[in-house]
Amino acid sequence: MSKVLAVNAGSSSLKFQLLEMPEATILVNGIVERIGLNDSILTFKYDGKKETVTMDIPDHQLAADLVLSGLVEKKIVADLSEIEAAGHRVVHGGEYFQGSVICDEYSISKVEELADLAPLHNPANLIGYRAFSKELPNATHIFAFDTAFHQTMPEEVFMYALPYDYYTDHKVRRYGAHGVSHDYVSKRTAELMGRDEKGLRVITLHLGNGASVSAVKDGVCVNTSMGFTPLAGLIMGTRTGDLDPAIVTYLMRKENISAEEVLNIFNKKSGMAGISGISSDARDIENAIEAGHERAILTRKMYAQRVLEYVGAYALQMGGVDVIAFTAGLGENDNGTRAAVLDVIKEGLGIEYDSALNDATHGDEVRLSTDASKVAVWVVPTNEELMIAQDAFRIHNEG
Amino acid sequence: MSKVLAVNAGSSSLKFQLLEMPEATILVNGIVERIGLNDSILTFKYDGKKETVTMDIPDHQLAADLVLSGLVEKKIVADLSEIEAAGHRVVHGGEYFQGSVICDEYSISKVEELADLAPLHNPANLIGYRAFSKELPNATHIFAFDTAFHQTMPEEVFMYALPYDYYTDHKVRRYGAHGVSHDYVSKRTAELMGRDEKGLRVITLHLGNGASVSAVKDGVCVNTSMGFTPLAGLIMGTRTGDLDPAIVTYLMRKENISAEEVLNIFNKKSGMAGISGISSDARDIENAIEAGHERAILTRKMYAQRVLEYVGAYALQMGGVDVIAFTAGLGENDNGTRAAVLDVIKEGLGIEYDSALNDATHGDEVRLSTDASKVAVWVVPTNEELMIAQDAFRIHNEG
Repeated sequence: MSKVLAVNAGSSSLKFQLLEMPEATILVNGIVERIGLNDSILTFKYDGKKETVTMDIPDHQLAADLVLSGLVEKKIVADLSEIEAAGHRVVHGGEYFQGSVICDEYSISKVEELADLAPLHNPANLIGYRAFSKELPNATHIFAFDTAFHQTMPEEVFMYALPYDYYTDHKVRRYGAHGVSHDYVSKRTAELMGRDEKGLRVITLHLGNGASVSAVKDGVCVNTSMGFTPLAGLIMGTRTGDLDPAIVTYLMRKENISAEEVLNIFNKKSGMAGISGISSDARDIENAIEAGHERAILTRKMYAQRVLEYVGAYALQMGGVDVIAFTAGLGENDNGTRAAVLDVIKEGLGIEYDSALNDATHGDEVRLSTDASKVAVWVVPTNEELMIAQDAFRIHNEG
Repeated sequence: MSKVLAVNAGSSSLKFQLLEMPEATILVNGIVERIGLNDSILTFKYDGKKETVTMDIPDHQLAADLVLSGLVEKKIVADLSEIEAAGHRVVHGGEYFQGSVICDEYSISKVEELADLAPLHNPANLIGYRAFSKELPNATHIFAFDTAFHQTMPEEVFMYALPYDYYTDHKVRRYGAHGVSHDYVSKRTAELMGRDEKGLRVITLHLGNGASVSAVKDGVCVNTSMGFTPLAGLIMGTRTGDLDPAIVTYLMRKENISAEEVLNIFNKKSGMAGISGISSDARDIENAIEAGHERAILTRKMYAQRVLEYVGAYALQMGGVDVIAFTAGLGENDNGTRAAVLDVIKEGLGIEYDSALNDATHGDEVRLSTDASKVAVWVVPTNEELMIAQDAFRIHNEG
């Protein structure tokens, strides 16, 4: 039995989960929010309790120290030396990493180098790692990359039709995102179906505030909708997904704004928020749909249409699809979005699903499709912390 | 019997065809090239002959005058009054036109207004119309729009996930292109199959230097890959197709160039030319593939992969597909590109095709699929001039 910490450090937040491995019992789950701002919030959930402290936490080092001292004070661990391994989520692993790796001089230097491709995320991920490694010097630390699972995509899928030098000189290619989630969900789906990943063709729909689709064949990712950056692919809460890029210069001229400003609008004011004019939150859209709000109805239809286009593309690429798995915020909890997606793809794929069961499913592992369905449909809540902890535990034991 | 002229005026060129309708006998076919440059070239093809004159033709009015006087001199017509109708291709009809219309004050003003969306094309199209209408004042003149066929797409397909105001204030939406070709080819395919368009689900692959895919169900376009501009969708000779738009600002920074320059590269130095580093011409790519050139092989694979993604998406949207029709330069003539596309989609769609027949097919109306194929595959050479002439003839007779 080993205690393993899974860490997800963002620019102003730090999520953590301590698990007993290999059983994967969650000992504590928590988050530090508003790091570097006033009134930071430190939350621990354990033993059925939720404890919150509000105080100023100026940096990630103090956040990590408070998390670790909290573990001891709350007697979740008797001593920090019990924590044998820690896994640190890193957004961008470029082409260097096809899986999780031990944190060493080489991997740290590559995470630093790749900050150029993920300027908001990689530096924050590293700060989180450094803060915890200082206090847990004897634990095995690993990086789990959100791009690694997608590194198996073939060249014709990950390359863009740009001058080739942009790939060799500037690393412009499709990397994908949410890899830890797609990896977990595709494996867990096979497990729930009692199937080997070999011979199974899975489409994973990670539908959160950020959203992406992956095609997973024989356990290997063969396509994903996120691209060079997380702006690509599906319609998201505030993001456009893929676009005719000529819209950039047209809007610069029409609105008299810079390219940076246009891209900022594509990232932060578009997607569901932009179309609906209401909110990026699917629950607000749902309420508006029920009230007959036309643009909310359009938003839902566009969202489902875009998912349909990826499902159709990926099903054809794999020569067919055996199972579609919904995960993440909307995928796990928003029965309306799931129904909208299923209703546009069901005719073409021969899907039959239990509509009442879909309405009742919020965050559980549930098979929505009926026995007669030609393609299985599952809701499989994602568990990135578990995936990261499993990798950390495995690498710790290998080392 | 009526003589009808079909005109396609570009910024420095003017294509024309005179047809005897309704038989659609081609009386003459020609082009004026390099208008406004030195050494303009005027070509007439008729009676099995090809006649070329090189001279300076400074503007479209002179080009039109030379075309019309040539028709009389060559005794193709005895008198210009025999030309009862003329159809003028217009690239952008915005949301105003769902089909071809008579050239009048309203339609002319709209074509002018829409120059904002097609600054290179609509003004040239209008200049061509004006030059011919001056010399053929008694003929019925119509505009045939390359966007009109796509106006039937549902809102969830044509809208982008942008702030809604960009649609209402700046007309930003998916319009599509090559509409005259998709319209012709989808109808002709149904005819060749002996099927009614009702109940038929067609995917038309217009693969030229510009390229687009359309989904046509019951004779009605329900999706197309071209977007707000002709940069969108498929990989083309020199164009990227849809992209993660965040690449624009990344390349601006890395290459120290403006957004306009990035978009210029996306339009003119990307696509097959950019990936291969060889050429935008599929014949050069084909030769390089045969010589084992790695990036040429990658180019072909990427091209086919992108087509696959659209075919999969559109087949699912239509609840299945009955026939896939290849047209335009590559679609009609490039057996290598057709084979590459068919080989990646055949497993998923249950396509069987005659490989030797594909290799032998260059520009003919041919069914490539075998009787056992679950989806029919046809090569159907496009004929935009005929479509335009038919519209002109019909509207002339209605009026």
